[in-house]
Amino acid sequence: MIQVGIIGGAGYTAGELIRLLISHPKAELNFVFSTSNAGNKISKVHQDMVGSLDLEFTDTVNPNVDVLFLCLGHGNSVKFLEANTFSDNTKIIDLGNDFRLEKDKVFNGKTFVYALPELQRDVIKSANYIANPGCFATAIQLGLLPLAEQGLLNNDVHINAVTGATGAGTSLSATTHYTWRDNNFSYYKPFTHQHLGEINQSVSQLQDDFDSEIIFMPNRGNFSRGIFATLYTDFEGTVEEAKDIYKAFYKDAEFTFVSDENLHLKQVVNTNKCLIHLHKHNGKILITSIIDNLLKGASGQAIQNMNLMFGLEETTGLQLKATYF
Amino acid sequence: MIQVGIIGGAGYTAGELIRLLISHPKAELNFVFSTSNAGNKISKVHQDMVGSLDLEFTDTVNPNVDVLFLCLGHGNSVKFLEANTFSDNTKIIDLGNDFRLEKDKVFNGKTFVYALPELQRDVIKSANYIANPGCFATAIQLGLLPLAEQGLLNNDVHINAVTGATGAGTSLSATTHYTWRDNNFSYYKPFTHQHLGEINQSVSQLQDDFDSEIIFMPNRGNFSRGIFATLYTDFEGTVEEAKDIYKAFYKDAEFTFVSDENLHLKQVVNTNKCLIHLHKHNGKILITSIIDNLLKGASGQAIQNMNLMFGLEETTGLQLKATYF
Amino acid sequence: MIQVGIIGGAGYTAGELIRLLISHPKAELNFVFSTSNAGNKISKVHQDMVGSLDLEFTDTVNPNVDVLFLCLGHGNSVKFLEANTFSDNTKIIDLGNDFRLEKDKVFNGKTFVYALPELQRDVIKSANYIANPGCFATAIQLGLLPLAEQGLLNNDVHINAVTGATGAGTSLSATTHYTWRDNNFSYYKPFTHQHLGEINQSVSQLQDDFDSEIIFMPNRGNFSRGIFATLYTDFEGTVEEAKDIYKAFYKDAEFTFVSDENLHLKQVVNTNKCLIHLHKHNGKILITSIIDNLLKGASGQAIQNMNLMFGLEETTGLQLKATYF
Amino acid sequence: MIQVGIIGGAGYTAGELIRLLISHPKAELNFVFSTSNAGNKISKVHQDMVGSLDLEFTDTVNPNVDVLFLCLGHGNSVKFLEANTFSDNTKIIDLGNDFRLEKDKVFNGKTFVYALPELQRDVIKSANYIANPGCFATAIQLGLLPLAEQGLLNNDVHINAVTGATGAGTSLSATTHYTWRDNNFSYYKPFTHQHLGEINQSVSQLQDDFDSEIIFMPNRGNFSRGIFATLYTDFEGTVEEAKDIYKAFYKDAEFTFVSDENLHLKQVVNTNKCLIHLHKHNGKILITSIIDNLLKGASGQAIQNMNLMFGLEETTGLQLKATYF
Repeated sequence: MIQVGIIGGAGYTAGELIRLLISHPKAELNFVFSTSNAGNKISKVHQDMVGSLDLEFTDTVNPNVDVLFLCLGHGNSVKFLEANTFSDNTKIIDLGNDFRLEKDKVFNGKTFVYALPELQRDVIKSANYIANPGCFATAIQLGLLPLAEQGLLNNDVHINAVTGATGAGTSLSATTHYTWRDNNFSYYKPFTHQHLGEINQSVSQLQDDFDSEIIFMPNRGNFSRGIFATLYTDFEGTVEEAKDIYKAFYKDAEFTFVSDENLHLKQVVNTNKCLIHLHKHNGKILITSIIDNLLKGASGQAIQNMNLMFGLEETTGLQLKATYF
Repeated sequence: MIQVGIIGGAGYTAGELIRLLISHPKAELNFVFSTSNAGNKISKVHQDMVGSLDLEFTDTVNPNVDVLFLCLGHGNSVKFLEANTFSDNTKIIDLGNDFRLEKDKVFNGKTFVYALPELQRDVIKSANYIANPGCFATAIQLGLLPLAEQGLLNNDVHINAVTGATGAGTSLSATTHYTWRDNNFSYYKPFTHQHLGEINQSVSQLQDDFDSEIIFMPNRGNFSRGIFATLYTDFEGTVEEAKDIYKAFYKDAEFTFVSDENLHLKQVVNTNKCLIHLHKHNGKILITSIIDNLLKGASGQAIQNMNLMFGLEETTGLQLKATYF
Repeated sequence: MIQVGIIGGAGYTAGELIRLLISHPKAELNFVFSTSNAGNKISKVHQDMVGSLDLEFTDTVNPNVDVLFLCLGHGNSVKFLEANTFSDNTKIIDLGNDFRLEKDKVFNGKTFVYALPELQRDVIKSANYIANPGCFATAIQLGLLPLAEQGLLNNDVHINAVTGATGAGTSLSATTHYTWRDNNFSYYKPFTHQHLGEINQSVSQLQDDFDSEIIFMPNRGNFSRGIFATLYTDFEGTVEEAKDIYKAFYKDAEFTFVSDENLHLKQVVNTNKCLIHLHKHNGKILITSIIDNLLKGASGQAIQNMNLMFGLEETTGLQLKATYF
Repeated sequence: MIQVGIIGGAGYTAGELIRLLISHPKAELNFVFSTSNAGNKISKVHQDMVGSLDLEFTDTVNPNVDVLFLCLGHGNSVKFLEANTFSDNTKIIDLGNDFRLEKDKVFNGKTFVYALPELQRDVIKSANYIANPGCFATAIQLGLLPLAEQGLLNNDVHINAVTGATGAGTSLSATTHYTWRDNNFSYYKPFTHQHLGEINQSVSQLQDDFDSEIIFMPNRGNFSRGIFATLYTDFEGTVEEAKDIYKAFYKDAEFTFVSDENLHLKQVVNTNKCLIHLHKHNGKILITSIIDNLLKGASGQAIQNMNLMFGLEETTGLQLKATYF
């Protein structure tokens, strides 16, 4: 069994990793590190674990685990790896944004691979250090990359996306108070969201002459899980030609599918799927891309990457029952 | 007291009119017409009326009321007025879309005025027949008209807006079932929403050389009331210049205000307000416009128009307590 | 105009008082005291006030206001009144629980009257110092008092009630985080809620031989506003007899009504109403009582009491439009 | 592989069975019967199946499947079995209430076993025809049976329970319209819910002198999934003694666990678990019991029963990832 360590064990993404790993047939939790919760049962924090897991949080790492997941606030992965040493055989998957950009990918002699499986599955298979993509970045890239690969992103791309409250993390804040968020709607970081960096990087990797603008409006929805993203840009072909491009791009994808029907968010909640829909109106292609921000947008994709790195079936432990309602 | 008749009394907008009129100091309900509910107490349908109103629905109209509100499905106002005759002194306010466009405004010798008070208050004051604006159309026009008046809409306008489930009417449907809509998100009628007609008409009325495209993505949110609209387009000035333009345009508005702070939907829910926020990034102005779809987007604005038509203070009966939570 | 001061201006109940007072025809805000927000616009905290109120929070009290509302955490009203002196002509309405019980009602020579209008309207009219009832206590008493007055509470009373997230106050906590509360349900303080004291006190005031137990299960619902309470106990009469008792008891009540139909919470949200429904099964009477916890359960009832104390119509400024959706 | 047929394939419980069966390692869908949807892809109705299942609904049954799940409205299982014949080797699991009571259990020579595994696992293992328990009945029995087995239910039991909107089925109705149910609360069938029959039957099976009353208030919550039930009755022992009784009763249970901490509904949503919490106050024991109404309360328990009937590990295909947020 693959021995797994989790750092930053009290947050949302760590909780999801734990939920996935307790029934993963090839991996097992070796330790879950959380200084603030050390000594407490994991089920005191991730309370659905009652009856499922007896393990306690620890403040001691095992430096010889096979794989380490970093679930820390942005900027803290670097600090943690500077302060703690692991075996050369320990693979590392960082769920933060410390190593996602080309300029940040080398750290202490380790090279982190940007790990969107649909973009570069084979590179991931042989990687030891992984920068797991951001949640908005995953939904948006999966909506754009098929066009980029064909060199068809030649005009500005307009993106509107809504994320659930888990996207803001576990810390208490005015905009995650129930009375504020219930039946509410708002935006944040208009045009300047930090995920634009990795999105532009991947688009340019596939279409090196890309020089249009990606205009991105992120919104806060009054739900807990999921990202619903709509993207449009100029496109000369028919919607059938677009579907052919997307279906070809995703022919080997285990979790990303093109739907012929309109989408709604709950089709993917609590799954590792991304669903894509295409619609054409006048000269514009409208692309809808939906994911669960904590799964395909974070912990599910991290397990997917672990599976690839360890030579397992990509879907191992990720055949999840959708909540749907 | 102004004697009021309501046609189509079982729907959302009729319910809101009733809620507003029971405490309006200058108007009173004369009859509420609903063939399917005739003889039933109004409080059997609009159940918050228990203790507030003893009136029953009727299937007989009083042709001599001072003002008639038509709360019918789109296309049915024409049919109703063909089948029923009212006094020449009866003013008519249609909440449907039968008379909103220039090509539709004359019916049986009556000329309907498009009644967005911020656009043409004085015209409304002397009108006898009113086409009350649509909900999305109200939010979007209030976001665009100040720029149009200055002739500054010279590029495509990109609009994303989310509406609550009351926007879809009272009829039962898959996408208004609780288990579907709860914690869900989706879009409908991309780029082709029927309100684009009245929006383009008003913009062109203020800026006659307008020939850009208004690109509108309407979405279904998982809340019951309200519209949150974001609009962006190219704008050369500073955000301060934009604020000056908007504040000048709305200096006499009783319900539309420019906010210096970011907005969230619940600031306006259960009020007749529209709040506007302006933000500049690179060459783009981002305009946020929020309303309650059933009040400023329908019944509240209808009462506002009634007040104007009868020479009352515009705010009479419309100083509503926000729900806020 | 009645000059009003509010202490503890940043909380939910203060916000509701402000929302009510800005359109109250006989009262006006003189000051809103909040040490943590002094100098900030009120609309920075109560953000629906944009366009409605320009006033700032202050950390200085005006000791000569006509009426003072205390919106402080439980126990802090005593502390505040020890540290601050007001005119002998200043009436005081405390929304906390410092003065609700007989043993606590005299403070510094002032006698606080427990002010549930349906229980003792005339006493309130001549009072200068008011202890405003708790939210659960209001809903439950209005469900029980008609039977108590008839001496008919002769067996245990079983109560289950659900309150919205505003019931827990504005402070951030695990159980008011959106991701926790959304689509969730839980209980708290089973059988020991602090409102039992005032409930038992009022029941015994009307039925002095009352010696049964009131068994109360309070729950947290996933909504923001409102209390839905069901109460049952043994009752020998028919449901018609019960209705007669309740209708007689509430014949002069301006806000409490008996409904012949089953109730649902949103019938009263954003109103000052209490609706009561009665149902009989075998030997038990089932009483449903619903209120808006922030209005009839707090700030609305406080204004109702102010109206009574100043000789105004009880409903002044309280004819509120229900949100309903 | 166990060949599975599903009758009534468009409803909630059929959808959940499909979600569970597509990743069950020992069973596979042979056909999904739905006359109204025959010929349509299953993913047109259960839209999360896009990318997961290509099968179509059929209006033809395969009479030789190994197991048949009946997901029909109450009363329709009898009608269906009268009109359709299956192999003598076909096991049948009825999710309706046609065969749950002793008086109904024999049909056409087949004897249906009431299949709550925690009550009579061994009987289920050798059964061919199963009456799957109701959702409320499951939550409530799991809360009461340990006391019944000890003969300790000697006083009235007071139960309050809240269910999600999926409890009402897929049909469109006023009380499942989003605008009605959002942020609302109500009760239905007070004291007379149809599940009382099977609850009393099981309690009497374990405690044959049981002659107290079970008083049950069912409520509609504004969430989609789950049942939160609180039950209290007189109990003379300590809470530790109660815990010992419950832990002993559930020592072999694979899905039912006693929690030392207070419970909240989302701990079990999208799992097959039941969590139980015990609290003592004065002479009363308060029992909380929570389940997902569609899983442990319906389709999950049906698969659990299938596993037992076919000699599989009870947990096969039921190690589900909780949604939790």
